[in-house]
Amino acid sequence: MDDDSRTTRWEHRAEVPLAVASMLFLTAYAIHVLAHGLPEAWRDLCLAVTLASWGMFAVDYAVRWRLSGQGHRFVRTHWLDTVVLVLPLLRPVRVVKVYEAVQRRQGRPRLSLHARVITYAGLSVALLGFAGALAVYQQEHAAPGATIRTFGDSVWWTCSTLATVGYGDVTPVTAAGRVIAVGLMACGLALLGAVTGSFSAWLLQVFSSEDERRAAAPAPDERPAAPPANRERPPES
Amino acid sequence: MDDDSRTTRWEHRAEVPLAVASMLFLTAYAIHVLAHGLPEAWRDLCLAVTLASWGMFAVDYAVRWRLSGQGHRFVRTHWLDTVVLVLPLLRPVRVVKVYEAVQRRQGRPRLSLHARVITYAGLSVALLGFAGALAVYQQEHAAPGATIRTFGDSVWWTCSTLATVGYGDVTPVTAAGRVIAVGLMACGLALLGAVTGSFSAWLLQVFSSEDERRAAAPAPDERPAAPPANRERPPES
Amino acid sequence: MDDDSRTTRWEHRAEVPLAVASMLFLTAYAIHVLAHGLPEAWRDLCLAVTLASWGMFAVDYAVRWRLSGQGHRFVRTHWLDTVVLVLPLLRPVRVVKVYEAVQRRQGRPRLSLHARVITYAGLSVALLGFAGALAVYQQEHAAPGATIRTFGDSVWWTCSTLATVGYGDVTPVTAAGRVIAVGLMACGLALLGAVTGSFSAWLLQVFSSEDERRAAAPAPDERPAAPPANRERPPES
Amino acid sequence: MDDDSRTTRWEHRAEVPLAVASMLFLTAYAIHVLAHGLPEAWRDLCLAVTLASWGMFAVDYAVRWRLSGQGHRFVRTHWLDTVVLVLPLLRPVRVVKVYEAVQRRQGRPRLSLHARVITYAGLSVALLGFAGALAVYQQEHAAPGATIRTFGDSVWWTCSTLATVGYGDVTPVTAAGRVIAVGLMACGLALLGAVTGSFSAWLLQVFSSEDERRAAAPAPDERPAAPPANRERPPES
Repeated sequence: MDDDSRTTRWEHRAEVPLAVASMLFLTAYAIHVLAHGLPEAWRDLCLAVTLASWGMFAVDYAVRWRLSGQGHRFVRTHWLDTVVLVLPLLRPVRVVKVYEAVQRRQGRPRLSLHARVITYAGLSVALLGFAGALAVYQQEHAAPGATIRTFGDSVWWTCSTLATVGYGDVTPVTAAGRVIAVGLMACGLALLGAVTGSFSAWLLQVFSSEDERRAAAPAPDERPAAPPANRERPPES
Repeated sequence: MDDDSRTTRWEHRAEVPLAVASMLFLTAYAIHVLAHGLPEAWRDLCLAVTLASWGMFAVDYAVRWRLSGQGHRFVRTHWLDTVVLVLPLLRPVRVVKVYEAVQRRQGRPRLSLHARVITYAGLSVALLGFAGALAVYQQEHAAPGATIRTFGDSVWWTCSTLATVGYGDVTPVTAAGRVIAVGLMACGLALLGAVTGSFSAWLLQVFSSEDERRAAAPAPDERPAAPPANRERPPES
Repeated sequence: MDDDSRTTRWEHRAEVPLAVASMLFLTAYAIHVLAHGLPEAWRDLCLAVTLASWGMFAVDYAVRWRLSGQGHRFVRTHWLDTVVLVLPLLRPVRVVKVYEAVQRRQGRPRLSLHARVITYAGLSVALLGFAGALAVYQQEHAAPGATIRTFGDSVWWTCSTLATVGYGDVTPVTAAGRVIAVGLMACGLALLGAVTGSFSAWLLQVFSSEDERRAAAPAPDERPAAPPANRERPPES
Repeated sequence: MDDDSRTTRWEHRAEVPLAVASMLFLTAYAIHVLAHGLPEAWRDLCLAVTLASWGMFAVDYAVRWRLSGQGHRFVRTHWLDTVVLVLPLLRPVRVVKVYEAVQRRQGRPRLSLHARVITYAGLSVALLGFAGALAVYQQEHAAPGATIRTFGDSVWWTCSTLATVGYGDVTPVTAAGRVIAVGLMACGLALLGAVTGSFSAWLLQVFSSEDERRAAAPAPDERPAAPPANRERPPES
């Protein structure tokens, strides 16, 4: 319990610096990659900022590990944090959590699980896609025989990869670019799983609530009875 | 309650003009894009009709927003209407709703949820695909180095995108064409989710109804007992 | 009831001729398309056999429609039969039904729903894929600028389409070939839905049966209690 | 019962030799394919080791078939073993089972079903993908007109196939390579099904546990009640 409260206090204190760090991380990396006209010194500064913000995530992870007092189990029980450590671009996804906490304090109902899943998946994929496009562009744009020559090409290729469409009109040709591409494909698979899974789960929920309503309405003329509590049903337009 | 009844009255009155407007919208846009032989004045007229019908959707949305008295929450609770406002091509999908209302008035059971999901998804995808093919064709057919040169190419490309197959034999090369393409990819993902989710939900429903039937039938020889109410089961041919 | 029994009698009588017809249909079409060395007369004979077997399906459909006495509703309630009429290649899928009937008569349990879904989906996709490869080959192999030049190319293209992979190294270029391709893409989507949906439904069933078993076992040491009736669980190797 | 205990004893005794054999199988095959500089005699030795380890799997399968005393039914009830016999590369997947047995003996809870599904699917796909990349490379790298010329190309092509992305920048051109490719596409479909299905099942479980918690908490202000037993919920970071 004591550890828990100390963890909570740490998280409260670290919230704002880490949010700033994650935004710095992405912005500095984007400038480092895209701003070709910038003097070398500025671009090196950007790289330094990127690495420094990554360092802050590592410190946060280490502190929480120690406070948890869980030893090796921490990595498993906090696997999402571990993923965020390795891919710090997912950090801004925590914004959803902050928004939810604010909502709850104001007495409003939390976001429904569907909305949360879609928001998380959408934000994660958008951020990872942007970072992937940056990284692939950095690896590819100067390679011999490359087809990804502009950042626009890279974004276009990223979108077609994440949707598992894969036109193949532009593709990475370097080894590093292809390794990043495989990571993006995995994200695409996960995105597909999230979209499909949410849809399937939502349909099943609507089914069962409809079945209950029918069971509650004894008349056989299928007149839709006034549901006493249909907060699970999304608003129909 | 008063607001609700006024909203209902508005919707009843606006039903027919909006249905006409949505058909006009798609037809006028198709003529504007495809009829190259037409005099310029006629094509401008078509564009004007397209914009005018879009204006009607905006007016309808504004009136219903005001009648609802919900303020900002309206956008969230009526998100489907908001989507329809931005993508007016989805308007004809409301035909399903009208058809259902007619069915119910005649005492017939409503379409099952599966049939509704498949009908909505199929119609939406067909209409969005048609509109996407039109828009991509408009952007691409005169671009230098384009591979999408005829409307047939555009339809073929749209189909391979929506099915997430993505051959890549013809692909958009302009920035505007690629932005539309990303929208179509998102539709393809959603379509995949709808097909998969419906199938999964249907299977689970059949499972549980079969389990119940087995539990109801005490004999261990697995003779299928006459189900007292199997209206969830689709008709087997 | 009288209509039902007459329908049943008709189905019993028509079973064998229709099974023969469906096999003839596919074989004759394959010979017509693939056997280039055959004299023209033989190939015309094959085409005639193909059309004649299609005619038999139409007759069967008409007879059952009339016997059902359902009017327009027949098309909706027997939609699978209607699909089989339009795509007679799905006819052999009925073999699964015959096999099941035989199994049941011998007192063995029916195929589980998962096995049935996978068998139906697998057989349908294999047959439709074979027919699609034949039809695309027929349309494409002599077209100017075609990349599908051999039947092997056509099969390879069909597989990459059905799996929604879509390499695009060989693609149809004629309008007719592309229309068939769109049909195959739809099959690919449905196959994906069937595979994913079955998997998801199976997982959920295993979950719930595991939850029940845990609830039944009161000891907290999570020793797997001997399940009294776990016939839903697939055999673990 | 007697057969069961003998089967169990056989499995205990065969565990270690078979694990060694499966590792030998993959290693020897990889050396045979990739080590071009090796003298012919060594490469032949590797091939012999590959075949010998395959022979061990066949012997194990035969012994267990006989011990089971099930006749033809064995193939059906132990379909996973049959698959492993045909694709011996899946053998290392059994490592998960061994790990689980160790965990259980130490009184720790077993891996959750989601973790097991993801671990199995991930390991199977990684091993099959590696083997597929090896086999395709062996078939393609010396073929005329081949685009898969290095093992790196082959791995890249395998990843894009398994994710059902399918860029098509490198594709197999030989008949044997394409047959292996179709097998990998099937794995890709299954992987997609596993990812999507797990996600969907997990979401549904979270839904239902949340509904129960809400039902347990009588206050209407939606304050999340302390769940008495939420061991199904994954840890939230």
